[in-house]
Amino acid sequence: DEPCGSRRCCEVVIGDGGFVFALEKRGYVQAGPWTPEAAAEHPEAVRQLHREFLRAGANVMQTFTFYASDDKLENRGNKQRFTGQQINEAACDLAREVANEGDALVAGGVSQTPSYLSCKSEDEVKAIFMKQIEVFVKKNVDFLIAEYFEHVEEAEWAVQVLKTTGKPVAASLCIGPDGDLNRVSPGDCAVRLVNAGAHIVGINCHFDPETCLKTVKLMMEGVKKAGLKAHFMIQPLAYHTPDCGCQGFIDLPEFPFSLEPRILTRWDMQKYAREAYNAGIRYIGGCCGFEPYHTRALAEELAPERGFLPAGSEKHGNWGSSLALHTKPWVRARARRDYWETLKPASGRPMCPSMSTPDSWGVTKGHADLMQQKEATSQEQLKALRSKC
Amino acid sequence: DEPCGSRRCCEVVIGDGGFVFALEKRGYVQAGPWTPEAAAEHPEAVRQLHREFLRAGANVMQTFTFYASDDKLENRGNKQRFTGQQINEAACDLAREVANEGDALVAGGVSQTPSYLSCKSEDEVKAIFMKQIEVFVKKNVDFLIAEYFEHVEEAEWAVQVLKTTGKPVAASLCIGPDGDLNRVSPGDCAVRLVNAGAHIVGINCHFDPETCLKTVKLMMEGVKKAGLKAHFMIQPLAYHTPDCGCQGFIDLPEFPFSLEPRILTRWDMQKYAREAYNAGIRYIGGCCGFEPYHTRALAEELAPERGFLPAGSEKHGNWGSSLALHTKPWVRARARRDYWETLKPASGRPMCPSMSTPDSWGVTKGHADLMQQKEATSQEQLKALRSKC
Amino acid sequence: DEPCGSRRCCEVVIGDGGFVFALEKRGYVQAGPWTPEAAAEHPEAVRQLHREFLRAGANVMQTFTFYASDDKLENRGNKQRFTGQQINEAACDLAREVANEGDALVAGGVSQTPSYLSCKSEDEVKAIFMKQIEVFVKKNVDFLIAEYFEHVEEAEWAVQVLKTTGKPVAASLCIGPDGDLNRVSPGDCAVRLVNAGAHIVGINCHFDPETCLKTVKLMMEGVKKAGLKAHFMIQPLAYHTPDCGCQGFIDLPEFPFSLEPRILTRWDMQKYAREAYNAGIRYIGGCCGFEPYHTRALAEELAPERGFLPAGSEKHGNWGSSLALHTKPWVRARARRDYWETLKPASGRPMCPSMSTPDSWGVTKGHADLMQQKEATSQEQLKALRSKC
Amino acid sequence: DEPCGSRRCCEVVIGDGGFVFALEKRGYVQAGPWTPEAAAEHPEAVRQLHREFLRAGANVMQTFTFYASDDKLENRGNKQRFTGQQINEAACDLAREVANEGDALVAGGVSQTPSYLSCKSEDEVKAIFMKQIEVFVKKNVDFLIAEYFEHVEEAEWAVQVLKTTGKPVAASLCIGPDGDLNRVSPGDCAVRLVNAGAHIVGINCHFDPETCLKTVKLMMEGVKKAGLKAHFMIQPLAYHTPDCGCQGFIDLPEFPFSLEPRILTRWDMQKYAREAYNAGIRYIGGCCGFEPYHTRALAEELAPERGFLPAGSEKHGNWGSSLALHTKPWVRARARRDYWETLKPASGRPMCPSMSTPDSWGVTKGHADLMQQKEATSQEQLKALRSKC
Repeated sequence: DEPCGSRRCCEVVIGDGGFVFALEKRGYVQAGPWTPEAAAEHPEAVRQLHREFLRAGANVMQTFTFYASDDKLENRGNKQRFTGQQINEAACDLAREVANEGDALVAGGVSQTPSYLSCKSEDEVKAIFMKQIEVFVKKNVDFLIAEYFEHVEEAEWAVQVLKTTGKPVAASLCIGPDGDLNRVSPGDCAVRLVNAGAHIVGINCHFDPETCLKTVKLMMEGVKKAGLKAHFMIQPLAYHTPDCGCQGFIDLPEFPFSLEPRILTRWDMQKYAREAYNAGIRYIGGCCGFEPYHTRALAEELAPERGFLPAGSEKHGNWGSSLALHTKPWVRARARRDYWETLKPASGRPMCPSMSTPDSWGVTKGHADLMQQKEATSQEQLKALRSKC
Repeated sequence: DEPCGSRRCCEVVIGDGGFVFALEKRGYVQAGPWTPEAAAEHPEAVRQLHREFLRAGANVMQTFTFYASDDKLENRGNKQRFTGQQINEAACDLAREVANEGDALVAGGVSQTPSYLSCKSEDEVKAIFMKQIEVFVKKNVDFLIAEYFEHVEEAEWAVQVLKTTGKPVAASLCIGPDGDLNRVSPGDCAVRLVNAGAHIVGINCHFDPETCLKTVKLMMEGVKKAGLKAHFMIQPLAYHTPDCGCQGFIDLPEFPFSLEPRILTRWDMQKYAREAYNAGIRYIGGCCGFEPYHTRALAEELAPERGFLPAGSEKHGNWGSSLALHTKPWVRARARRDYWETLKPASGRPMCPSMSTPDSWGVTKGHADLMQQKEATSQEQLKALRSKC
Repeated sequence: DEPCGSRRCCEVVIGDGGFVFALEKRGYVQAGPWTPEAAAEHPEAVRQLHREFLRAGANVMQTFTFYASDDKLENRGNKQRFTGQQINEAACDLAREVANEGDALVAGGVSQTPSYLSCKSEDEVKAIFMKQIEVFVKKNVDFLIAEYFEHVEEAEWAVQVLKTTGKPVAASLCIGPDGDLNRVSPGDCAVRLVNAGAHIVGINCHFDPETCLKTVKLMMEGVKKAGLKAHFMIQPLAYHTPDCGCQGFIDLPEFPFSLEPRILTRWDMQKYAREAYNAGIRYIGGCCGFEPYHTRALAEELAPERGFLPAGSEKHGNWGSSLALHTKPWVRARARRDYWETLKPASGRPMCPSMSTPDSWGVTKGHADLMQQKEATSQEQLKALRSKC
Repeated sequence: DEPCGSRRCCEVVIGDGGFVFALEKRGYVQAGPWTPEAAAEHPEAVRQLHREFLRAGANVMQTFTFYASDDKLENRGNKQRFTGQQINEAACDLAREVANEGDALVAGGVSQTPSYLSCKSEDEVKAIFMKQIEVFVKKNVDFLIAEYFEHVEEAEWAVQVLKTTGKPVAASLCIGPDGDLNRVSPGDCAVRLVNAGAHIVGINCHFDPETCLKTVKLMMEGVKKAGLKAHFMIQPLAYHTPDCGCQGFIDLPEFPFSLEPRILTRWDMQKYAREAYNAGIRYIGGCCGFEPYHTRALAEELAPERGFLPAGSEKHGNWGSSLALHTKPWVRARARRDYWETLKPASGRPMCPSMSTPDSWGVTKGHADLMQQKEATSQEQLKALRSKC
């Protein structure tokens, strides 16, 4: 009953945060392709981010191998100095190095592929996963995560490949309460993933904590109704997205370069951690938008359950108590929980709305616009796209 | 005519961003005291942040010595494992190490003191600055910055001390268009600082770019009217603060833990860089809230003037062009300047306002509530403060 | 096939707007009891409002008899100089007088009763409706409307009483997509009302046009699925209420005295009229918040279908065309449809949010707090209520 | 010392509200020309609005003669069935009829002219005012108001003509704190109007109460500094306009058809009345956007000073007390002052901003675009204007 290879999994596991957004802000990842070549190109930056999440209380160091399949690394003119294998190996080494600095597990991660979107066969797609898995086995990661899948079918294929390693497997979809992009319901998705062999199922990315929580609850109901058992995980965005449609924050007009006003505060995070815990979810982490202080907030909220504070709390008092050291008296007066818990933070942007209308092209796998290519997107292709907006 | 010791100062200098807020989010600085002991405690984290700002295009590595005076390091129970001297020395070494990885200058920085706020004498306050300066001279920084002063009088004292080194001196106040906390106008402040010996004068922290720009313009007018000459610098917040009063963002109810919705986008930053340049300001940087991608946006906007892009732009196309590599067609359609330049980003927070009413206690140096102390703030003191809110 | 006694009903009927809110703003109705004694007390004010709705294009003059049952007129210390019968008779006379000035029909209206809320028997409640009906028959109104019912059971009772007159009967609930206060779905409600004898069924009050439209569509589906036939009506609020729960705008903290920022523009109204028409609804009117210009906007939007503009359009061009007569050139430039259709109007309230959290006491008929009384609410009762907030 | 012919002027005078906006919503005035032909065309509607303002507590019935000069009645193709004289006479009769129903004064009003904007001579402009005055003298109004002037020069001319009647004269500009459209400061404007012979000077229209209050205070300071004496009046918009530039709400993109979200609540009005009274202003009324309930709120707030409540308060308790008669317990719980005074009302419009960027063409009298004409604005003229936006 210890699916991810550790006594901790039966208690609360704090996941780390998403690397591609955090490293994009630090200058090491390119928005658009979102590929993880920094693991090989700029290892000091990746190592430092791992350390910060570890210090923030994360129990899992996930290898920075998001979108590290060869078909993605070469998609649309995304030229790399490193092979997929080199990147995957470097990422495993970094994760293990930092995990050993604390008491964390290393999770090898795979994610959805352009090949699936371009209607490649099950065999072709599985071969891509297998190539990554070989590195994970060689580097002996502790468990495996198939995450960020929009189509449950592709996630099932991934789980089936991951299962061949004998290691514990988690599977996480980036879908909302309306289901996957083919409208398979969250409950049905969860059942299919458990049946495919996943020990942990859940949701990551694409939606805010509130929405992800709703979706995981639907998964829990589905699994229970089917008479199955599983652990559940949740790794939402650190962005408020009440206005999202079924495809998540990618459809928001602000994606990816103007999401700032939506960033969650540490207090929003504590609320989320509590609600996720109360819902029975025991793998609670984050995805795009998470900075180390967001993860620390999860660990601080759940410190009573876990029995300890994370290392990073040496620089953070509970509920703003460190403000008692501020030089200004009115700021010292804010050193209390009820102040921060009830504050409705202003945007400072009176010319801006509070919600947007998402793009909603309503197309997915199989549609011509979603066929990927090795060549860079041409000016003609861009022009044609703009005319559709 | 090269006040900061370099040919570059006559052209455009890109400053780095504020360290205390960035490192607080990463888990190495405590909000409240905001002291820089991480320079000695967690050098790898400080080094990495220096590198990211360098990579983002900053010409200056400012020593992480904000609030590193002994009276501040010991204020209100802020116990440290390191002496002020150790911290200042470690900070100088880190800044120099990373500056040498590129072609940047090292600036030693001093800031306002609790002693001044507590009505200590000119001699006592100057002695504090002198202690920090001794380290800067020993470590041979390239130039000096007196920054984050709310009272021009204390900034004059600092400049006078800094001048004794023979190194170029910059002086930067954290005030708005209404002047310093004793209502000395920005124009008069600038004249006094130039007369005290500052080569560069300007504004940092406490207000958003738009407000800081307005204030620096008033400084320019004052200096010109007085028949003096100076260079000008600007290092604003990365937060929108249209609702601030004279004391800046410290008075906003969201300070410091719920400022997220106010964070500037990279496009906001490009607009700011252009306006600052057009106003004739040639030292353009950032302060609290700046992340490396904000600094990179300044460097990208001013690439035509500087003649080159920063290293970090290898992971960032102009105006979102890297989105042409995205898998989703509607995101590829956003790979263009006019899209991002005109977008009004939503907060995702329909229950929140767009502006706040700042606290406004109207007290400053001399008021009993502003006397600092070595002992931790007591529960009685906190209770008394809350009753004043 | 002419359920409301007129050829017009098979085409588009424009309903009038709600009287209690409009007359409250004019000084003739008391918010809280919302009773229509003005029909007898201040007939000139009621007559003028009828005329304005007639001039705006309304085909129906609904008698101002909302909440004109004796149990409501005497509820909680609501003392009146006039009997219920006097008020009902005066209201019929005024509606008929103005209807005859144009070509409108008179509809006698009944609404939900405190007696039902206080758990009185079916016979007692029906006796109350019967008393009002007797006036309507004597005054020979053209058709009857049972409107503003939160419980379908009480609406059925009303329809059964109204049917005894032999006149066409419309039935309109003030519920949302989640159904009546006992969670009977809109589809089931509609079927029950049609089975009780209503020729026209639909929704009025409590929600904005968008929400009401959604609810009426559910009613249409229910009626169709049941193999029945009916006409459909919609008379929504003139307030945007995206944040309402199941009880509608009464639960919003702004109800009833701070709803101003939510008021619909005339352009919002044209959009609503078009969508209601496209959904197949043919009785399209308004309720609380409607002013005559809102009703005129409905009539202008549907002028192509109806074949004529309302009289009031002599003072209103299509889509702002009268602005071509403005003295300022930049206002003349706004005399066009695309300007007004795409404008996102600002609130001018930067300290206010865009949505609220509704009160949600979750109690209805049968709960002690909802027992009504003849005596005025006492200070003790008020105090007890406040302690529950 | 009784400038407007009444003992009441030395106490508090409550002015009525603006007629053109209120009657536009009721269907009797055309937005764009904003001319008052309804006085002759639809007297019942004008009479009823007078009555409602009287009932709300207004001490002054202002003749509905806004823009009733012949040059305006004929501007840009604005064809009328009635002559200017007929309209002015009808308006006087209506105001007197209703004033006599209570204890109110009749004020004859003139406003700025297209002739002035089109650079006609002083004699020509004065002749236009004289023509209206002749009616006011014949109908024996109690006092005169020159209101809604954007250029103090034209207002001086008006005052000079009005003075010839021997009746008390009030003069009111529609300017903000930055002064008239030629940048004459509010203080200087007030001095010039007092010197021209005005007994009462102040501000009406174009800005919200807060802004108008600021402007009247500047007028008071100017008059005091000049050693003069005057009474002061204020009749602001019922719209929140924090984002206005110097030309007021006309420049807001929402003018005039999408101002709804900006409408003041009754509680906003009470705050305004109190602040105006505290500032020493004794003629306190309203302009565009005012509905009778807004005026009633002024009268209720100042009831302690005036010694009585207005007639309309029979249908309105203080601070929402009538809600104690509501059927729902949570609404009864809102029957209290602190609830309404602190509520921040939501807009219900999450897609909309809280402030707008005003148009700012920066042109006024003398500019070709502001020359008026008898002919209707042509399609070519409209097209040319749109191309300037």
